[in-house]
Amino acid sequence: MTTLNRRKFIKSAGVGGVAAAASAVAAPAIAQSAPEVKWRMAASWPKALDTLYGGADQFCKYVAEATDNKFQIQLFAAGEIVPALQVTDAVINGQVEACHTAQYYMWGKDPTWALGCAVPFGLNGRQQSAWWTEGGGEALLNTFHAKHNVHALLSGNTSAQMGGWFRKEINTLDDLKGLKFRVGGFAGAVMSKLGVVPQQIAGGDIYPSLEKGTIDGAEWVGPHDDEKLGFFKVAKYYYYPGWWEGGAMLTTQINKAKWDSLPKSYQAICKAAAAQANQYMIARYDVMNPAALKRLVAAGTQLRPFSEAILDACFKSANEVYADLSGKNEDFKKIWESIRAFRADSYLWMQVADNTYDTYMMIQQRKKTL
Amino acid sequence: MTTLNRRKFIKSAGVGGVAAAASAVAAPAIAQSAPEVKWRMAASWPKALDTLYGGADQFCKYVAEATDNKFQIQLFAAGEIVPALQVTDAVINGQVEACHTAQYYMWGKDPTWALGCAVPFGLNGRQQSAWWTEGGGEALLNTFHAKHNVHALLSGNTSAQMGGWFRKEINTLDDLKGLKFRVGGFAGAVMSKLGVVPQQIAGGDIYPSLEKGTIDGAEWVGPHDDEKLGFFKVAKYYYYPGWWEGGAMLTTQINKAKWDSLPKSYQAICKAAAAQANQYMIARYDVMNPAALKRLVAAGTQLRPFSEAILDACFKSANEVYADLSGKNEDFKKIWESIRAFRADSYLWMQVADNTYDTYMMIQQRKKTL
Repeated sequence: MTTLNRRKFIKSAGVGGVAAAASAVAAPAIAQSAPEVKWRMAASWPKALDTLYGGADQFCKYVAEATDNKFQIQLFAAGEIVPALQVTDAVINGQVEACHTAQYYMWGKDPTWALGCAVPFGLNGRQQSAWWTEGGGEALLNTFHAKHNVHALLSGNTSAQMGGWFRKEINTLDDLKGLKFRVGGFAGAVMSKLGVVPQQIAGGDIYPSLEKGTIDGAEWVGPHDDEKLGFFKVAKYYYYPGWWEGGAMLTTQINKAKWDSLPKSYQAICKAAAAQANQYMIARYDVMNPAALKRLVAAGTQLRPFSEAILDACFKSANEVYADLSGKNEDFKKIWESIRAFRADSYLWMQVADNTYDTYMMIQQRKKTL
Repeated sequence: MTTLNRRKFIKSAGVGGVAAAASAVAAPAIAQSAPEVKWRMAASWPKALDTLYGGADQFCKYVAEATDNKFQIQLFAAGEIVPALQVTDAVINGQVEACHTAQYYMWGKDPTWALGCAVPFGLNGRQQSAWWTEGGGEALLNTFHAKHNVHALLSGNTSAQMGGWFRKEINTLDDLKGLKFRVGGFAGAVMSKLGVVPQQIAGGDIYPSLEKGTIDGAEWVGPHDDEKLGFFKVAKYYYYPGWWEGGAMLTTQINKAKWDSLPKSYQAICKAAAAQANQYMIARYDVMNPAALKRLVAAGTQLRPFSEAILDACFKSANEVYADLSGKNEDFKKIWESIRAFRADSYLWMQVADNTYDTYMMIQQRKKTL
């Protein structure tokens, strides 16, 4: 790299953190281990989505507390400084040092990004944490991310999501044909093979579209978030499971040059803060969802499972998309094969102790003996 | 508290960390936020149990990395400085500042301790993390712990355990009568109502007892740990689930006076390091158990589910023990009622999206289509 290029590189690596860069150069050696750093983080979430936004907030809060406010990350809600779906681009181009997002928003640029968030019939939330941290996922994903000048930390999970809200019942595969359904990239590609017409609509615009009947259905997350957006007022049938999000990982994305410039102690603090945020978000959903589900059902929502025939058709369709993408995209293929091998082994084991235990307890729940 | 008592208290609060205490008094204000602290942690695990010991190791490692080695916690394996089952006592009396343990080892002194680890037909691992961190568990448990001069951080989980190894099949309730089974306090109390003769045997002594036939069966953790201890060589039938450990929380216990003396930044680092350790251990078991299970089955192990009749009898017996303990022990009652309410709500929600998703995926696993 020539000097000129180095200068350009340093300049392009970010507009924030000037004070930090200056102190890292100017301060004596003893202070370099705990420099003053000020970053900005753009979230893909409005503050009203308290659990998703809360994961980002927990991350920033822990970093500040652990460093006695020497490392401060200012958090911005969706749209405050960067639009919700463009936060990773803002990290890549250095507009902000960090973002908190769902990586599948980058699906259109390269489907490989989605493997760091949620893919149809992929891992459940617990398996995602295991694969990311101890199953080789972190190295695979961050090797891919590094090509885009990004380093990612696992910082949240929704656990299994619901399949969404429908104005009429979905009993057969025929009911999917021509259905205008609000759903994101990968799942939309799978569903379109079955005749669904996927609709790309931002979170805030879903309700009016469903109310007017411009769309026939919409998926978002699960009881806690969906209740906030009011879908139950305009669609009666709430289907499960969201087979395209058996879990959904949320990540803190950090500009790689900025990440590499951090002292090792600050990197360690970020990693632990990310684990804390991940634990927080999973727990928070687990605490909030049961009460929201009960309120929704009390308000007239009808819970409906997708039939096994529908799930089978979707699974087959998803596998065709996986084969297609794997044939065209080496990054995608390599990471998907790792997830797939992990998935088969993990579900072998999980049906023994975990699932048998849970099944027995769910029988008791239905008997009201818990 | 009189001055004399205060002096005695300070003296009794710990023999380690002298340098830290000195620096906290003597150092100028600016340095107090990152003092040199050296602690000792006694684990209940031998190093060979790499996943349990690994949780403790991760905790210490992250604290050191995040503080540039200013806060160092030296980890000792079981028996090195404190016997495995007495580490909490060593924290209470100040012999060490911290330990990493399973709180149900304190069951004999007060059954309330077990509620911070695992109890029969209690929460599964995911529910335990949710209840502890966002469901009110942390405050309830640490209010109880404070009475014993201990502050606990959730620092690991085994997830659902296996039901253990048996030399003969357990088909009916009659097969339990007179059965000499190695199992811990609470589960032992439940099983003894069904005629089992519970055996208290330390981990390292289980194998020879099972080999000689001194006992008829033994439970430990799950495939990864159990394989290391070699039980499959002397008992053929491996039962599931371990209904007394639908999840088992491991905790870092810290002497409360020592905890209170830490700067806020070090407390924040400990909390985040605990979340990191918790995530690590859950993930590590999830990565290691499937391969161990496959090896055990290849070596001739026969997997057997406990029958629903046996589970029903154990559930009924457990509820009798809960009623008995709740009638005698206010601390126990208060915390158990919180767990119980959380359990009912959580299993209502988890059978919708999560369990339906997992069930479909497990069907595919058995069809070999994953």
